[in-house]
Amino acid sequence: MTQIKPGGKIGILGGGQLGRMLAMAAARLGYRCHIFCPDVRSPAFHVACDFTIAEYENEDALKEFASSVDVATYEFENVPARTAEIVSKETLLRPGARALEVSQDRLTEKKFLNECGVKTAPFKAFQTQEELDEAYKEIGRPSVAKTRRFGYDGKGQLMIKARKDVDDVMGVTKGTAAILEGFVTFDREISVVVARSASGDVAAFPVAENVHTNHILDTSTVPAQISEVVEAKAKVMATRIANALEYIGVMTVEMFVNDGTGEIVVNEIAPRVHNSGHWTIEGAATSQFEQHIRAICDLPLGGTDARGKVRMKNLLGKDILDFEQYLTDPKAHFHHYGKLEPREGRKMGHVTWVEDAD
Amino acid sequence: MTQIKPGGKIGILGGGQLGRMLAMAAARLGYRCHIFCPDVRSPAFHVACDFTIAEYENEDALKEFASSVDVATYEFENVPARTAEIVSKETLLRPGARALEVSQDRLTEKKFLNECGVKTAPFKAFQTQEELDEAYKEIGRPSVAKTRRFGYDGKGQLMIKARKDVDDVMGVTKGTAAILEGFVTFDREISVVVARSASGDVAAFPVAENVHTNHILDTSTVPAQISEVVEAKAKVMATRIANALEYIGVMTVEMFVNDGTGEIVVNEIAPRVHNSGHWTIEGAATSQFEQHIRAICDLPLGGTDARGKVRMKNLLGKDILDFEQYLTDPKAHFHHYGKLEPREGRKMGHVTWVEDAD
Repeated sequence: MTQIKPGGKIGILGGGQLGRMLAMAAARLGYRCHIFCPDVRSPAFHVACDFTIAEYENEDALKEFASSVDVATYEFENVPARTAEIVSKETLLRPGARALEVSQDRLTEKKFLNECGVKTAPFKAFQTQEELDEAYKEIGRPSVAKTRRFGYDGKGQLMIKARKDVDDVMGVTKGTAAILEGFVTFDREISVVVARSASGDVAAFPVAENVHTNHILDTSTVPAQISEVVEAKAKVMATRIANALEYIGVMTVEMFVNDGTGEIVVNEIAPRVHNSGHWTIEGAATSQFEQHIRAICDLPLGGTDARGKVRMKNLLGKDILDFEQYLTDPKAHFHHYGKLEPREGRKMGHVTWVEDAD
Repeated sequence: MTQIKPGGKIGILGGGQLGRMLAMAAARLGYRCHIFCPDVRSPAFHVACDFTIAEYENEDALKEFASSVDVATYEFENVPARTAEIVSKETLLRPGARALEVSQDRLTEKKFLNECGVKTAPFKAFQTQEELDEAYKEIGRPSVAKTRRFGYDGKGQLMIKARKDVDDVMGVTKGTAAILEGFVTFDREISVVVARSASGDVAAFPVAENVHTNHILDTSTVPAQISEVVEAKAKVMATRIANALEYIGVMTVEMFVNDGTGEIVVNEIAPRVHNSGHWTIEGAATSQFEQHIRAICDLPLGGTDARGKVRMKNLLGKDILDFEQYLTDPKAHFHHYGKLEPREGRKMGHVTWVEDAD
């Protein structure tokens, strides 16, 4: 496998806070970053060596970007397949196209997960009203209708609690390919951030327990309130998924846990660093961002132990204006993503508290 | 005092590794950085929002730089007085001109320190051969001749061990203003990194013990092997110096300690973040770089407690090529400054080990 030594150039598709924190971690190891993003106000541009402002469909810009770097990666799973193809013709693309293919389509993803021997919610694909009615007959309610592609933070989804909710589904999915997912009863949501290096080494971070509010992550806490057996099982699942994809980089697996049975259902995978892994920056021996850089550059993976009890909280919209409160808290580590407009619900920063373990 | 809120712009004079690490700390808090440096290969450019490549004497470039930022600071003490004057006409310059004036001239510095009630090595100014002979009569040997200005890492210095060494002094000082310093016997070298905010709050980091090799810092270790009394005394001295300068930002005070008597002699002050404070990045509650940004932006200062036993080692020249050794060590944190040529003696990176306290 090709090792990219410190001093080399890393390309990142996407210029949001994940790209920004990746670029900062890369810089600490001596790499220079080139960010590709259509948005002129991308916060990752502020910490990078080079940047390209162009659409993901701009083949010339993509070629120039890709040929300027030793390895390319991405901060979001909705990189168009054609974009990935162009980039990977010019340079190493890590993780590769297979990870995008699987994670971009909820149907492909669920089938892949089941093939890995991992349990998911029951699901049925639909596109038309007739197919929906049939899926509803099989899956029943409560259930969730979701478009197969391009959904995040609850967008393109509709919960079916009552029979009449079925009538609203086509208004949300708008005739695009979708799935109806059976509702999984669970006690807690967890995620495993796992890294697999170009050489095939795998290391999983301790499991984080996540709380969502309005479909957006609110807090991640480590350790999760789960048994050692569930913790170990969750890591094994994530490792199995990473290996099955021959994955290179950091990926995140979101799961639901039933405390009574210890059963784990995989919700979805994200082929990238993840909001639920931000706690690792101060809370783990290595941050998920540095780990991703190590993995794609084929450096040895770093340690993943937690440094104690860790809690990460997202700062959305105007939450960011309370910065003094966090800066005066001796156990808090405050992060501001450099976005200027604190729009409602926008991820503006986060805070991580690290305390000694009991 | 004017607070610069996250999202604001910070100007940094100097684009070396200190400017680079300052820019990365600033970015974490949401600030955008503008680096001003004449060297096109400045490693700080790689992590900054804006940069200007121009000489420190270029008044137009300085004005444009200064008027583009909310506050300006510097990573090195040899900022020309005229440069500081131009910048401070357009924006806030923190720390201010007084800190530069005192630290740029060994004679002014020593007089200032003595006025603060702090002990220094005995010294006598000279410029001509006659003045040198007179100074030598008073100070004797062993002693060190040093140019008053622009010396660092042992440059512009000559040790006088034998009578005949005096004959070589003028060849080193070349008729510029210089001082002859009495040699201080000491058991260890320590440094205190202290921050004073625009509002006048002061916080000192734990004392670091430093080992130099060939006049270049090799390692810094925390805690220093000194008594609690000496530790407290060293912090009080540094605080007194910062207050006397009405200093804003992080400054570093290098000291010599005599273990037997507990006597502390101040060697020199650096009006900036310092190599002997790199251990704070992973080893303290707040890094010296973030603390400097907090201080100059008038944010609350962060906690300074050490996270255990910490050791920092500089990687000079080809040392940097051993990166795999550090990346495989689970207790090591590896930093690469992004400089491409590993010239002999050049500071290329550093490693910090953090272990639990006994």
